[in-house]
Amino acid sequence: MDKKNKMITSRDDDFAKWYTDIVKAAKLADYSSVKGCIVIEPNGYAIWERMQEILDKKFKQLGHVNCQMPLLIPENMLKKEGELVEGFAPEVAWVTQGGEKELDERLCIRPTSETLFCDYYQSHVKSYRDLPKLYNQWCNVLRWEHETRPFLRSREFLWQEGHTIHASSKEAEEETKQMMDVYRWFFHEILAIPSINGRKTEKEKFAGAEYTLTNEALMYNGVALQAGTSHYFGQKFAEAYDVKFMNKDNKEEYAYQTSWGTTTRMIGALIMVHSDDYGLVLPPRIAPKQIVIIPIGNDEKVIDKCENIKKELLENNIIAYIDNTEKSPGFKFAEAEVNGIPVRIEIGARDLENSKITFARRDTREKIIEDLSIDIVKYTKELLDEIQNNLYNKAVQRRDKLTFTATNLKEMEDILNTQPGFIHADWCGDTDCELKIKEIKGCKSRCITDEALITGKCVCCGNDAKHHVIWGIQY
Amino acid sequence: MDKKNKMITSRDDDFAKWYTDIVKAAKLADYSSVKGCIVIEPNGYAIWERMQEILDKKFKQLGHVNCQMPLLIPENMLKKEGELVEGFAPEVAWVTQGGEKELDERLCIRPTSETLFCDYYQSHVKSYRDLPKLYNQWCNVLRWEHETRPFLRSREFLWQEGHTIHASSKEAEEETKQMMDVYRWFFHEILAIPSINGRKTEKEKFAGAEYTLTNEALMYNGVALQAGTSHYFGQKFAEAYDVKFMNKDNKEEYAYQTSWGTTTRMIGALIMVHSDDYGLVLPPRIAPKQIVIIPIGNDEKVIDKCENIKKELLENNIIAYIDNTEKSPGFKFAEAEVNGIPVRIEIGARDLENSKITFARRDTREKIIEDLSIDIVKYTKELLDEIQNNLYNKAVQRRDKLTFTATNLKEMEDILNTQPGFIHADWCGDTDCELKIKEIKGCKSRCITDEALITGKCVCCGNDAKHHVIWGIQY
Repeated sequence: MDKKNKMITSRDDDFAKWYTDIVKAAKLADYSSVKGCIVIEPNGYAIWERMQEILDKKFKQLGHVNCQMPLLIPENMLKKEGELVEGFAPEVAWVTQGGEKELDERLCIRPTSETLFCDYYQSHVKSYRDLPKLYNQWCNVLRWEHETRPFLRSREFLWQEGHTIHASSKEAEEETKQMMDVYRWFFHEILAIPSINGRKTEKEKFAGAEYTLTNEALMYNGVALQAGTSHYFGQKFAEAYDVKFMNKDNKEEYAYQTSWGTTTRMIGALIMVHSDDYGLVLPPRIAPKQIVIIPIGNDEKVIDKCENIKKELLENNIIAYIDNTEKSPGFKFAEAEVNGIPVRIEIGARDLENSKITFARRDTREKIIEDLSIDIVKYTKELLDEIQNNLYNKAVQRRDKLTFTATNLKEMEDILNTQPGFIHADWCGDTDCELKIKEIKGCKSRCITDEALITGKCVCCGNDAKHHVIWGIQY
Repeated sequence: MDKKNKMITSRDDDFAKWYTDIVKAAKLADYSSVKGCIVIEPNGYAIWERMQEILDKKFKQLGHVNCQMPLLIPENMLKKEGELVEGFAPEVAWVTQGGEKELDERLCIRPTSETLFCDYYQSHVKSYRDLPKLYNQWCNVLRWEHETRPFLRSREFLWQEGHTIHASSKEAEEETKQMMDVYRWFFHEILAIPSINGRKTEKEKFAGAEYTLTNEALMYNGVALQAGTSHYFGQKFAEAYDVKFMNKDNKEEYAYQTSWGTTTRMIGALIMVHSDDYGLVLPPRIAPKQIVIIPIGNDEKVIDKCENIKKELLENNIIAYIDNTEKSPGFKFAEAEVNGIPVRIEIGARDLENSKITFARRDTREKIIEDLSIDIVKYTKELLDEIQNNLYNKAVQRRDKLTFTATNLKEMEDILNTQPGFIHADWCGDTDCELKIKEIKGCKSRCITDEALITGKCVCCGNDAKHHVIWGIQY
């Protein structure tokens, strides 16, 4: 069991290869014959289902309702908001033929659905009494990317997009912030990923937004991943799509909008933060299967004991299953390991005689032998919590180790040439400086934070700084 | 409360108009600016979520796992199976531009995903040990329809498509039948719709299938709706896509396939079987909200009582909510009625004094006053079951009333001219006769059943009959 999985390249040797090896070995996704698109295989889709379940429940608790807008957007509808169309036009796919006929107007496959929601609001929002409207949809979107990688960047991906409309800027801004807090909670508490939150620069914000809040995580190799964004639109889209309502003073007013989204790329983040050379590692709270019970041998008493343990765990909301396939125990151990099942329980006939039970932790790969008389539910719950916390703490340590400070371009360059990571540096607010920094290995501003300035001088031009910014190379 | 909803045309006056009025009044869906596509609004989407929840659980209990194939299919991949491409080519939408470039090969938006699954199987199925594979996906598909109606027929719709592959025809045929039984169970037990099951004729089967099993329901107006199909492909697709496996005798063999699907059109069936001139009527087992509690007045004790009842019901898995908006009780009653909430509970200050509670049934529109001391959970459970059964029985009666027998074309014509319905008639098996029958108001074979022949002679040509067939006009 201590041999490294031969299918998997070492993470420290070739991170990119290691990543795709994990995707393949854990059967999360596969390339398809459709260029730039992937097949999300059952193991990968089960993680997405768990993400959906947890986020959907949270969204609904906060008053959001799900709906479904069309997949296609007529070109004229897309074109109404100038910045949006400029931002997305180069990367949409166009339907030009329906059945056997050429279409009069081409239709794009939604890259995002602000325009469709605006079109809907336009005929459904009349008065402040209709507001707020808090919508979300789970769906597929398509962006014509050229370089693709499973989960991180593919032409089609799955996501949720929340769209809300309000009677005041205050309410809409609160919603924008609230949903960013939800993403932060989800990353920290469920995915065990210590993300940072902040505001995108003008250059990096969503096309058409007043501002964009972002959730940024750092991968094992020091590359940053934008993993959830929340946009405040003010009245910009409402003006473009003529979404007006009668306010309390009986005056017409443009409505205030937000949108926010997370995608299947969170699966990529899980891999790149927690997994190792032995395969996938999943934090227990997001694992579709938390416990695998492996009977050693075919002894009837052993099988009964395994069944009893499974039943007890399931009754206590711990997702357990028995691997009772015909494979050898060693093969089952290896499979559970590569698939990232947080805890493996082993019981054999001799264990029953000696009143022993073995727990194997996926995170530390440690085996723990306990007496069979322990309270199995309490023990397992505590063990799962400990694994969750351990993964989070390890990720925090790694992130902190890869977090740097730069006061001038030379320092920034040295850091990026040695080991990429989050780089704290002050910035004057000028896009020219941002572009100059980007010349160093494509380093971009990740977000503007509320943290205090370091030197008060821009890391690039040395002039007075306006913002404390975190920079990094991104996926 | 006894006034008919003014937004809703009478069902007996104009069924088509009544249908779209219900869709609109109950806020299930709305037309979008995208031709032939609809917006599924929160009330409609919540029904779909409930359908997904129940079916998905059942699929998983039977060993199926969810996955996600790409949205787009390259033209060459689609073309490999001749019958399939002939069946679908006239009704697909083609993407010809990606980003700013013309594509070398056009891609169609999936009308169904057999080809994509075959492409996947081809590289993942090697040995009988890999089989069976039991997949399902929840997704959107697109067919370039010309006449569209919300839920019944729209260019884009949501569905689940199961795709399985087996090492023997026996296993694959058992799967085909099993999934048809699941749909039958879902229709009868959950949707309270007494569907009939049978086999499609050669002319009506799925393009490329060996045979198609179908679930056919009869709407209030006597028009039939195909509401779920299960296809057995034998080795046809496996041959076209070269899906081979090594069997137990160590010989190469083409694999055996099935697929099966249901769609958002089931929401249309729910409307057309159960609803009335007062709005939507939902069977309790599919209703996203089963009980609405309406406090009369603002008395604190009344609100507390309502909260306690809600809590008790929710703890016992009865989906209850309180309408505590600022609308008048009368408005709330009307809204609950048009939205099809199965049971409305009303409590006011005077009721508390007199120890009374009022239940209003949506199905019969009856008000029942009970003593507040009743066991509310037990009472509500029984009432919901009674409503479920009542709706089912009413649907059976209606279906039976609209089920006819014909022994010759004249009889068939008379029935169809008076009142469409299910028509039992024998058939020789000849497509010419099927086409001749279709000339009568577009009447088609719904399915071949196992029932005994009636006269032994074909209803059309009078020659010896091979099958007992149920005929009808369809949506």
